[in-house]
Amino acid sequence: MKHPRDAFEPVAGNGLLHRRLFLTHGALAGAALLTARNAAAAPLETPEWMKTPGGPFSGYGQPSAHEAKVQRYVQAVPGTTGAGGSRTPHEQLEGIITPSALHFERHHSGVPDIDPDRHRLLIHGLVERPLLFSVDSLLRYPLVSRIQFLECSGNSAGMNAAEPPQQTAGQIHGLVSCSDWTGVPLGVLLEEAGVKREARWLLAEGADAAAMSRSVPLAKALDDALIALYQNGERIRPQQGYPLRLFLPGFEGNMNVKWLRRLKLTAEPTMTKDETSKYTDLMPDGRALQFTFPMGVKSFITSPSGKQQMRGPGLYQISGLAWSGAGKIRRVDVSADGGKSWAEAALDDTVLPRALTRFRLPWRWSGGPAVLQSRAFDERGEVQPTRAALLGERGPNYRFHYNAIQSWAVEGTGEIKNVFA
Amino acid sequence: MKHPRDAFEPVAGNGLLHRRLFLTHGALAGAALLTARNAAAAPLETPEWMKTPGGPFSGYGQPSAHEAKVQRYVQAVPGTTGAGGSRTPHEQLEGIITPSALHFERHHSGVPDIDPDRHRLLIHGLVERPLLFSVDSLLRYPLVSRIQFLECSGNSAGMNAAEPPQQTAGQIHGLVSCSDWTGVPLGVLLEEAGVKREARWLLAEGADAAAMSRSVPLAKALDDALIALYQNGERIRPQQGYPLRLFLPGFEGNMNVKWLRRLKLTAEPTMTKDETSKYTDLMPDGRALQFTFPMGVKSFITSPSGKQQMRGPGLYQISGLAWSGAGKIRRVDVSADGGKSWAEAALDDTVLPRALTRFRLPWRWSGGPAVLQSRAFDERGEVQPTRAALLGERGPNYRFHYNAIQSWAVEGTGEIKNVFA
Repeated sequence: MKHPRDAFEPVAGNGLLHRRLFLTHGALAGAALLTARNAAAAPLETPEWMKTPGGPFSGYGQPSAHEAKVQRYVQAVPGTTGAGGSRTPHEQLEGIITPSALHFERHHSGVPDIDPDRHRLLIHGLVERPLLFSVDSLLRYPLVSRIQFLECSGNSAGMNAAEPPQQTAGQIHGLVSCSDWTGVPLGVLLEEAGVKREARWLLAEGADAAAMSRSVPLAKALDDALIALYQNGERIRPQQGYPLRLFLPGFEGNMNVKWLRRLKLTAEPTMTKDETSKYTDLMPDGRALQFTFPMGVKSFITSPSGKQQMRGPGLYQISGLAWSGAGKIRRVDVSADGGKSWAEAALDDTVLPRALTRFRLPWRWSGGPAVLQSRAFDERGEVQPTRAALLGERGPNYRFHYNAIQSWAVEGTGEIKNVFA
Repeated sequence: MKHPRDAFEPVAGNGLLHRRLFLTHGALAGAALLTARNAAAAPLETPEWMKTPGGPFSGYGQPSAHEAKVQRYVQAVPGTTGAGGSRTPHEQLEGIITPSALHFERHHSGVPDIDPDRHRLLIHGLVERPLLFSVDSLLRYPLVSRIQFLECSGNSAGMNAAEPPQQTAGQIHGLVSCSDWTGVPLGVLLEEAGVKREARWLLAEGADAAAMSRSVPLAKALDDALIALYQNGERIRPQQGYPLRLFLPGFEGNMNVKWLRRLKLTAEPTMTKDETSKYTDLMPDGRALQFTFPMGVKSFITSPSGKQQMRGPGLYQISGLAWSGAGKIRRVDVSADGGKSWAEAALDDTVLPRALTRFRLPWRWSGGPAVLQSRAFDERGEVQPTRAALLGERGPNYRFHYNAIQSWAVEGTGEIKNVFA
């Protein structure tokens, strides 16, 4: 893709502009393209909040009351209060860190209210020395911190419906969030316990009323797994596993067992209810894939996105999120013509392995119909598939690990709709 | 520094161990060094929170009630409620992201309760076209996101006292925090306004009752300044400038004017009350340095640290934070003998320019007296000075930009004290 001489010359169909437009010194000079108002004649008024001292300091801050509408999308299973999920409202957020208060939730029997002084983690089974840890004893072990995403394998599953759900970006794709996680490398604890030669798997069990349980390959546990105790600097929130959870970088969310209380080393997977009754991928021939752990390469556009309204023709920044369970995002392309032509997006400076990665591209909307798409490439060379390719291969019942390209149709009226393009 | 053959062989005085200890496969095997309890005979009890469904989903989450003690340290000027500061309790946190709820505060007349629909930003003075922006109009401009620290120039100023203050790490050094900031590059707005040839400075004014005002060099505004609208994903908190603030990467905190309402382009600095009556650096000869903007290279140890109590001889992880206004942290050294010998610490993977950087080093405490120090090096080659060198050069009244090495004395009793070493 060339860097056009005129900064406003499109680099791909339907008005996509070069990702460096806003870095091009002089490109905007005198263009008055956007929405500032000429202020020559307008004196700046002194609002009442400058006329009296403001509010006091606070030990623990909260958002402005004017932002009270920014909430997770809660969807509990009918008849329950704590089974189901809640989704991060990504179309109202920016950057790559998800505030802990808005991190997605997926619970199987609600959020247990755990007394950290009484919580225990047992490591047993095929080990030389079964070990029992209190939270205080775990906090004596070495810690490491990493900014990484967590995605529920059921994220975006509604996109396998016959008709495109008319929802916001967060309602569709909000079962992914990204935090600065800090914890004890699980390998250190396993080394202390002494893993027996025949061990190949761990059973991980949560201290919730569902005793949510999954089998985890020993190789992953020894590689980069954490017993996570902190999230975005502070201790993990109850909704994310307080006082501790398993964290398996890049692996599907439910394996990152929250409220973790037990790790049992085994020779074979345990075949728990949570890995046989669900979290398997039904294939067209009626068989199911099991133990499909890593999350694929994926992206979606957060702005402009579903249920938003364009403000009229002119210059926009397309913004979105990309990630891959395999490592870093290498590139994100954006299309405004439903995938006929593509322009490479700019990535924000902070591109971290297995973290949400923010992409951006300037776009001049003519006011006519357009279909916006993004497709991500990761450092392994994997590319996000189209919906047709994914469901063509995996069949119409494919639910988990849905990672296809999202299409937002911008209509002449400025309405934005979810379409299958 | 060599990598010793025995993983527990010290690499520097008083028991500092090699930073790769916990990565050395087999180093810990059978050592049972830490605090796990042999669990062979102990059945895992089923706590009451597993016997009944847990709590419901929430639109906006909060920390566990068991963490209610984790609060900012508030210190208001006597007779006021909103003038003074509050500090981040770093000794209770981990990783590099500061939760927005615990980001430090420094207000001159409290926190204004701003209606975002009525807030305006005026750009005027030496420009071709004075411009007036609403929040909505700013949100149409391109955004960029960066994870960067913000430090009050008065951070750690109490360390110039005659006697070392017996406080926690956060009470002493907690006027620094680190967030994922998202905003509009100020250069784009200035380009649209058309900067006149004679402009060299900007007056930045806040919409608080103090109309907090600072002069900012135009070169910085055109380089990497942001009009920041988001903090850690969500809209900026009231205590950090809702609905928008100036963000000047690496520059002293008070210049990053909160609740920003006005930028006036000028030929000379305005000499506001906030840059003449304070935020100047008094020198031994009675003159003062003014406009000392970038924050220096700095670090401190968060664990173990002041007012904490050692739990007895054995293996510990020393953990702390380093940062520099000039760019990335290149290296952090740790000493356990008051600076006589040093060992290089491990840095967590996420080393970003002008961001808090987490360092760690294993330490075997013998139970005897020790003095823990950290010293940071940045990518420009600057190194953190000793207290004696800093105050020797700058004089005993030096308050702002205090970045000397911190010394924590570990006593035989396990008490940890702040000392001038």
